[in-house]
Amino acid sequence: MELTLRVAILGTGLIGSSIGLRLRRASTAKVPIDVVGYDRYEDVARQAQKVGAIDSLVYTSQEAVQGADLVILATPLLAIRKMMEEIAPVVSDDAIIIDTGSTKSEVLRWANELFPAHVGFVGGHPMAGKTQTGPQAADADLFEGARWIVVPTVRSSERAVQSVLWVVETLGAKSMFMDADEHDAYTAAISHMPMLAAGAMFDMERLSDAWPELSMLAAGGFRDTTRLTGTDPAMAFDITVTNRDHIVHWLNRYIGALIDLRELVQSEDQEEALFRQIAESSFEYTAFINGKVGRPEVGVSLDAARISFQDFFTGEWVREKLAQVSEANERRAEEEAREGRSRRNV
Amino acid sequence: MELTLRVAILGTGLIGSSIGLRLRRASTAKVPIDVVGYDRYEDVARQAQKVGAIDSLVYTSQEAVQGADLVILATPLLAIRKMMEEIAPVVSDDAIIIDTGSTKSEVLRWANELFPAHVGFVGGHPMAGKTQTGPQAADADLFEGARWIVVPTVRSSERAVQSVLWVVETLGAKSMFMDADEHDAYTAAISHMPMLAAGAMFDMERLSDAWPELSMLAAGGFRDTTRLTGTDPAMAFDITVTNRDHIVHWLNRYIGALIDLRELVQSEDQEEALFRQIAESSFEYTAFINGKVGRPEVGVSLDAARISFQDFFTGEWVREKLAQVSEANERRAEEEAREGRSRRNV
Repeated sequence: MELTLRVAILGTGLIGSSIGLRLRRASTAKVPIDVVGYDRYEDVARQAQKVGAIDSLVYTSQEAVQGADLVILATPLLAIRKMMEEIAPVVSDDAIIIDTGSTKSEVLRWANELFPAHVGFVGGHPMAGKTQTGPQAADADLFEGARWIVVPTVRSSERAVQSVLWVVETLGAKSMFMDADEHDAYTAAISHMPMLAAGAMFDMERLSDAWPELSMLAAGGFRDTTRLTGTDPAMAFDITVTNRDHIVHWLNRYIGALIDLRELVQSEDQEEALFRQIAESSFEYTAFINGKVGRPEVGVSLDAARISFQDFFTGEWVREKLAQVSEANERRAEEEAREGRSRRNV
Repeated sequence: MELTLRVAILGTGLIGSSIGLRLRRASTAKVPIDVVGYDRYEDVARQAQKVGAIDSLVYTSQEAVQGADLVILATPLLAIRKMMEEIAPVVSDDAIIIDTGSTKSEVLRWANELFPAHVGFVGGHPMAGKTQTGPQAADADLFEGARWIVVPTVRSSERAVQSVLWVVETLGAKSMFMDADEHDAYTAAISHMPMLAAGAMFDMERLSDAWPELSMLAAGGFRDTTRLTGTDPAMAFDITVTNRDHIVHWLNRYIGALIDLRELVQSEDQEEALFRQIAESSFEYTAFINGKVGRPEVGVSLDAARISFQDFFTGEWVREKLAQVSEANERRAEEEAREGRSRRNV
């Protein structure tokens, strides 16, 4: 009687190796877990073995999945399709197959195309990572407390879904179900579009004639704002081409928001609105950073923050600031009258 | 014979108190430095005294500057004008007057208007700060190694400029001369516009119907990208209304850059250009973070980075990636042909 859980990790980079480390730590005498690793770069698989992320390594994806109970596709996103093509003829009908790609609609399309009868595939996306890459950076606690989006296909069996929930829990992460399109829309908004916009901002500054001076003046704020420009380019590219429509949608909304902002900054007679917007954003950002997330009905309290925001807004400080604003406006009007021109017409 | 250097700090928040701490540390038997502090909030001045940032406190700005050799205007930006109005009748003709405001054209306009004959005023902007505010957060080393933009007026005397250079050096910072408009253009590009754009992005997400889900999916990348939204709102507002034109200019350029980006993301036949742009940005960002700043002729080497960028681009990795891209393109073309439609026309 075979009790060992046999796991095949295809792609032993940061994510694959971190999964391997944690699963091997979860191995017990009662339920032994054996992890075999494959990476198209042999030295990456060797390094994964060296850091303890896999028990053994093999030289083809087909070897890796033979006899595997659980197959984890942790390659770069666009390479997942090729892995699926390779393993489809040999993977066991009973195997559970999961992936860790950052977009999901294309991955599910590939799975439907390449595993047309398999009921073991369940898509996934661990919302965790770090700047460093490769097995050297692997961390058994990388997924601790992180959300792991679980995206079943129309064919995923109940057993497959339950198995995936067990894997996610074993890795220390929290499961969250979504359908593929919903996942891709949300991650486009909160992750993919911001990543590309950060790059556009960095490039605009870098390609400006003033960059030698700008780069000397750049402080932590600019570095943080544009930090996602440093995302691994292959990953950024794969994400972009597998999630175009949602990214374009959110780029359009962001461009619209910036056009509104420009209007507000330009209008000298909208200073009160400008101040209220800046203050409210800053206040809400602080609440967000301090853990105000989710829907109230799922147990996150929005009320405390709302109330203090009201206090903040009805407080003395804001009244003073607005008085200062109108004083400055009056002075400017006087100056303009004195100078015999309206700056607004310049 | 009076040897003591008498310093008046108006506004004893983070910046004013950090200056006070460092100047008091620089006080010697040979050149004793006495620091008097004033803040419109008495408890803030008291706190500054408690942390050792000032020797004594007074209750009006006029008292503070009487007999002062060096006057430091470290109040919020829009309050600087009022401070100037208050002290103009009593400040000594020999006093050196500096400010620490984040924009400079308006400040110099105020100085010219309110100190029409004074030769001691020199504008300034220390490029340093932290998230915390107030004298509690004061740090004698806050300016260590930071750039301090020095902005003389047309009337600033040679003695005033030399004195300011001494102050900046004493604070551990590095002087950099700019004219006011140049300063405001550069900081709009690298700091003020990114701050407002971060707020626009955060607001767009926060005000979306999907925010409950988005906020749960937001990871470190989104928090960093939008971090400047948390800037003190009074400071953000003051900066915005004193630097409108430059901010609008850079907002326009950023909107243009995003429109170009959208075009590139949308076009399935520009994947090679998309990949090259993403890879080059990521590479240049890494070089920037690792200290590639300034002009080559001022001693910063760009060549090393250029060469490795060439290596990077002519390397095997990129050739493979591009092969993968065209393979994916061909497959898509086949799929489209099979499905009897062009996705590009959808």
